[in-house]
Amino acid sequence: MRQADLVIVGGSAAGIEAAIVAQRHYELDKVVVIRKEDSVMVPCGIPYIFGTLGSIDKNVMPDSLLGDAELIKDEVTSIDRASQTVTTAGGEAVKYKRLILASGSQPLRPPIPGMQLDNVFAIPKDAVYLREVQSALSSCSNLVIIGGGFIGVEFADECRKLDMKVTIVEMLDHCLMLALDEQFCCTAENNLRESGVNVITGNGVRALHGQSRVEWVELQDGTRIEADAVIVGIGVSPATKLAQDAGLEIGAQRGIQVDAYMRTSDSQIFAAGDCAETFCYFTRKAVPLRLAAIATREARLATMNLFEDVAPNQGAVGVFSTVVGDTGFCAAGLTEKRARDAGLDVIATEAAAPDRHPGTMPGASGQKTKLVFDRETGKMLGGQATGGTSTGETANLMAALISAGSTARDVACFQLGTHPALTASPIAYQIVNAAEHALVRGR
Amino acid sequence: MRQADLVIVGGSAAGIEAAIVAQRHYELDKVVVIRKEDSVMVPCGIPYIFGTLGSIDKNVMPDSLLGDAELIKDEVTSIDRASQTVTTAGGEAVKYKRLILASGSQPLRPPIPGMQLDNVFAIPKDAVYLREVQSALSSCSNLVIIGGGFIGVEFADECRKLDMKVTIVEMLDHCLMLALDEQFCCTAENNLRESGVNVITGNGVRALHGQSRVEWVELQDGTRIEADAVIVGIGVSPATKLAQDAGLEIGAQRGIQVDAYMRTSDSQIFAAGDCAETFCYFTRKAVPLRLAAIATREARLATMNLFEDVAPNQGAVGVFSTVVGDTGFCAAGLTEKRARDAGLDVIATEAAAPDRHPGTMPGASGQKTKLVFDRETGKMLGGQATGGTSTGETANLMAALISAGSTARDVACFQLGTHPALTASPIAYQIVNAAEHALVRGR
Repeated sequence: MRQADLVIVGGSAAGIEAAIVAQRHYELDKVVVIRKEDSVMVPCGIPYIFGTLGSIDKNVMPDSLLGDAELIKDEVTSIDRASQTVTTAGGEAVKYKRLILASGSQPLRPPIPGMQLDNVFAIPKDAVYLREVQSALSSCSNLVIIGGGFIGVEFADECRKLDMKVTIVEMLDHCLMLALDEQFCCTAENNLRESGVNVITGNGVRALHGQSRVEWVELQDGTRIEADAVIVGIGVSPATKLAQDAGLEIGAQRGIQVDAYMRTSDSQIFAAGDCAETFCYFTRKAVPLRLAAIATREARLATMNLFEDVAPNQGAVGVFSTVVGDTGFCAAGLTEKRARDAGLDVIATEAAAPDRHPGTMPGASGQKTKLVFDRETGKMLGGQATGGTSTGETANLMAALISAGSTARDVACFQLGTHPALTASPIAYQIVNAAEHALVRGR
Repeated sequence: MRQADLVIVGGSAAGIEAAIVAQRHYELDKVVVIRKEDSVMVPCGIPYIFGTLGSIDKNVMPDSLLGDAELIKDEVTSIDRASQTVTTAGGEAVKYKRLILASGSQPLRPPIPGMQLDNVFAIPKDAVYLREVQSALSSCSNLVIIGGGFIGVEFADECRKLDMKVTIVEMLDHCLMLALDEQFCCTAENNLRESGVNVITGNGVRALHGQSRVEWVELQDGTRIEADAVIVGIGVSPATKLAQDAGLEIGAQRGIQVDAYMRTSDSQIFAAGDCAETFCYFTRKAVPLRLAAIATREARLATMNLFEDVAPNQGAVGVFSTVVGDTGFCAAGLTEKRARDAGLDVIATEAAAPDRHPGTMPGASGQKTKLVFDRETGKMLGGQATGGTSTGETANLMAALISAGSTARDVACFQLGTHPALTASPIAYQIVNAAEHALVRGR
């Protein structure tokens, strides 16, 4: 029987990160990664296969990332905790000293009639399946996307670049509403509409209809939308069957329960990424946040803690960014709505300015920023922005300020740096100005 | 005689910021800004007038930024501290309750023969003078720039876009050496050379020669460079004459001495920006850091502290960014060299990756990042990067991590967010990976 110091189940973001970090931190005799996929997709790159990249092959994570870890392409079917052994569908058995479960998630499929019809696609991180989706879409002319979260919006923005009429159906009042406050959602929706996407909100899908292939979508209000393809992007559910079968505890959000060191209810087994329970930095409650950047962070923490409790998890801040058309959107921490829903008394402020200075510099885009502060403590709870391509790093700056426990005064007095071709002016810098407004309002 | 709650002397970055912040924070009867310039340049935009912007008019800060503050275009010639009155060259006298000195700096002129020749330009923030420079340069074919700091490098990169042969002469071993470690300086120099700029380092200017107009530049080693125009970019000296005449204390770096609340030796008078003494966040020692983003921060602090000590200055972290060709460069905090020169035992690490993911996404540039940590405390002392247009916000993220007192472990476990079209992948994110290397090396 094979023996390994560390076995990692799953080869996507969390699994790869765990393999990398393990090799950096320890001199282990053997690290084994077991995954069922022949090749691994960049998870967040999947929507971009369909438009911008044009090819699945451009969205592959090379196996060389695994370094000296041994890769077994097979599916783990059981864990024997007593003997510390995993067994695969192919009959392989590997004994582990430590085990990291990074089994990911599978797309949710809504319980509506017609889901079994041809050309109705959920989006698993599976190259073989995605190749089929891409091939099927190439001959379609009416695509309906169920769900207006990040996946839905990104698919819509990419597929509208193909020769297709694209409709998004979102049950909530707005697309992206779980990540952004209303005004930013509306901007994103307007951008989608201006580029030709039909955006329907506050309306669910009652059923999918067709002979063998989907032909039309029936909405809750009776509206009928022609469709020769449907993409379902309503979220994911943690892949926990293996853990459950092994008797590991499952949490409130249906992920594998872990402690602050990413350890499961078995002290030799850790879990990270979409399959693991994630808790919120602010509320300390379990939250269904499934993002590649959370997965890799959890994998980093789990791996650092394999043999000693060194890096406790402070919880997920929740940091998102996306692009709709040419406009970037981002959020870190709590939106105003989420903060108010959590019962917090907040001060929310805004500042807008070009992201170059003077605004006449080439490449300048307007950046609008909103910050949310706790009125009682003055601490920054969240930030959102819409603007140019630096919005992604703006999200990370916001996340750093939040993670540091910064107050409105700290942020208003923050020592930033600026450059005409790269940032807003130091006078107009949006995050600092929004914080200053909050400071004045909070007195 | 006019009376004002607040008089601000100087109308550039610090003066404008003080006027804005004063009106946000207080309900003052009257705020007066007195400046000698008819219109004010975006200070950091000045090099870009000559190439990218093409026009001085595109680089003006509108007076509307001053809001309801009264603007007097005149030069303050004296301060009578006993009567709390400033007097201008035009004979105006204004009584103040609080005074903020934001008188800026003037360009240094090296004590070398030939500086009085025609077509030898220092670069003051003066639209009238800059118009003359621009007009003179338009008929020149050989430009020599003395000084390879940010100003020199930015002027070189802009002027090489004109029909001119451009030479930089830098006395130190490398351009940008006060802000960046050697490897980043070399990259910047290579970019300049590839775009046709003649970069001479480790060599000073001995004299400028010519009849009435400069004709050639003589270097320390005897080299002779043809020149029909010379730009001097060797730094600035604080404009403190007014303060000195009024008997205010002057500091070790020749700026107006201020306390942690930006108050001068007169409790009713504050100073901010290039004219004020700045101290280093790390060493607590006076440093000759003169940057617009430091000036505006000091102005914000000074204004918040006008009537009550509320926002102490923690010192300047020093956050820079620039662009050479299409490549961004940035630094926050201490370089490895500066940290070692300050006697610190440091761990310096690097990580490089595309700033999009997968790297096949359009617009992807490689970003190389270097971080510097204190071996004893584990705290982040500095960061540098070279890459695409998000480098400017990368500097700010580094500054936030430094200001928060983050250790290598904090940074390695930092909750970032990523997106294919906006950032590196969560596995390859440069700052986190460099921190992780430091964590391993520091054990």
